[in-house]
Amino acid sequence: MNRPDGLHVVDITDPGDARVDDFRDLNSVDRRPDLPNGKGLVIAEGVLVAQRMIASRFIPHAFLGTDRRLGELADDLFGVRAPFYRASAEVMAEVVGFHLNRGVLGAARRPRELAPADVLDGARTVAVLEGVNDHENLGSIFRNAAGLGVDAVIFGAGCADPLYRRAVRVSMGHALLVPFARAQQWPADLAELREREFRLLAMTPDPTAQTLAHAMADLSGQKVAVLVGAEGPGLTETVMRASDVRVRIPMSRGTDSLNVATAAALAFYERTRG
Amino acid sequence: MNRPDGLHVVDITDPGDARVDDFRDLNSVDRRPDLPNGKGLVIAEGVLVAQRMIASRFIPHAFLGTDRRLGELADDLFGVRAPFYRASAEVMAEVVGFHLNRGVLGAARRPRELAPADVLDGARTVAVLEGVNDHENLGSIFRNAAGLGVDAVIFGAGCADPLYRRAVRVSMGHALLVPFARAQQWPADLAELREREFRLLAMTPDPTAQTLAHAMADLSGQKVAVLVGAEGPGLTETVMRASDVRVRIPMSRGTDSLNVATAAALAFYERTRG
Repeated sequence: MNRPDGLHVVDITDPGDARVDDFRDLNSVDRRPDLPNGKGLVIAEGVLVAQRMIASRFIPHAFLGTDRRLGELADDLFGVRAPFYRASAEVMAEVVGFHLNRGVLGAARRPRELAPADVLDGARTVAVLEGVNDHENLGSIFRNAAGLGVDAVIFGAGCADPLYRRAVRVSMGHALLVPFARAQQWPADLAELREREFRLLAMTPDPTAQTLAHAMADLSGQKVAVLVGAEGPGLTETVMRASDVRVRIPMSRGTDSLNVATAAALAFYERTRG
Repeated sequence: MNRPDGLHVVDITDPGDARVDDFRDLNSVDRRPDLPNGKGLVIAEGVLVAQRMIASRFIPHAFLGTDRRLGELADDLFGVRAPFYRASAEVMAEVVGFHLNRGVLGAARRPRELAPADVLDGARTVAVLEGVNDHENLGSIFRNAAGLGVDAVIFGAGCADPLYRRAVRVSMGHALLVPFARAQQWPADLAELREREFRLLAMTPDPTAQTLAHAMADLSGQKVAVLVGAEGPGLTETVMRASDVRVRIPMSRGTDSLNVATAAALAFYERTRG
């Protein structure tokens, strides 16, 4: 049925209905060899993440959800032209392959990736990631970036896909809202950050590095790029050498480093705690 | 065989061997109706967590691992009287029910729980949790507590079991090392913190609360208890009222709260960043 607000609600009663194929077998939806780049669609799970998808540059082309979630999303869906496939929780579970208690999904095709120049214009604080290949950590970094005032995320070598379903979910949808771009030449593209007058701050457990508090105080008023590497190996030595200042979080004796998303959050926080 | 250093290495070639029953079907080992309290054994996964178990009050009564991990743990196992059941990766996988790439497990029985008085003696910074019922968040809080100088953790109502296998793993074994205790009367037991001259700092997203930076500056030199509630509901109003100061993390517009373990990490960090 077409509602006066333009929303196109379609009832789905047959789990085999081809119109909901984009939501089928959600546990394997992140790989879609049929799509141009072989990666999956962008999937939003739950009301909050669906709201953020609607507000983002990832334009949903379809929703699948229960009537209750349709009601919760009604205001957000005003003017949205994508069909809302309405189904019972049981039919949804058969389509997606498991019981989804978030009750609603949105699907978007992947738009063109942004370039570093696109996301650096006007930015004053950015996160630069190298080797962060865990989807939960990536999602957490986006959530922390959004909450703590980071304007953009740049991916160096070895990072996982921030649009993977689990990353989007853990980010609470902020992976769709915080602009990100992939460096084309790594780590040579760090030069672009320098040209734009960013100061490059490399996080390290090295006890001879400056403390986060001192380093950020020195950089007050300047543009800052916070560089973090994967848990364990950390940033590569090449990237460490290309940075302006090596920075550590003061840690208790006998402990190793913090989780990479937590370490990044502390750096973002120190930047804005003012 | 008994080695000169006292370590008792036993080769296991039959996955059905009853001597490794404590490691059987690891995905369901957290519930053991046969044990006195119906909870599982404490299980350490991997070399690092096994090392921390050996150093903790959770005395392992058995290990199961590959020869390679036995070699890596040799120094730590010196003087340890528990048998090390040595098996191939294939036999281990059959025992535990999946391929375990960490390669070694330790098992300990649960000792008597500590009381708040046991863990508060000498402590200057403690975390107090209410309603934190997610094992990954609990594990992360212990890891952050250990790294950022928190002396003890107190559990109020509604918290999950910090000795659950996943919590121990995510904590990197720090759930075995950072002392914790359960409040007997909640929230009445907060009075014990006051009697010991702790200042009670309640984390909240309330925009009228003090910023973390200002609140911690005021409490410099005093004992501090950082109170955090579950993501979503946060601390109960009763606990908020029992606190000395309500504290917020400055957040960007349009974002909701941070993950509870991240919020706790920022509070712990602010306490020690000096």
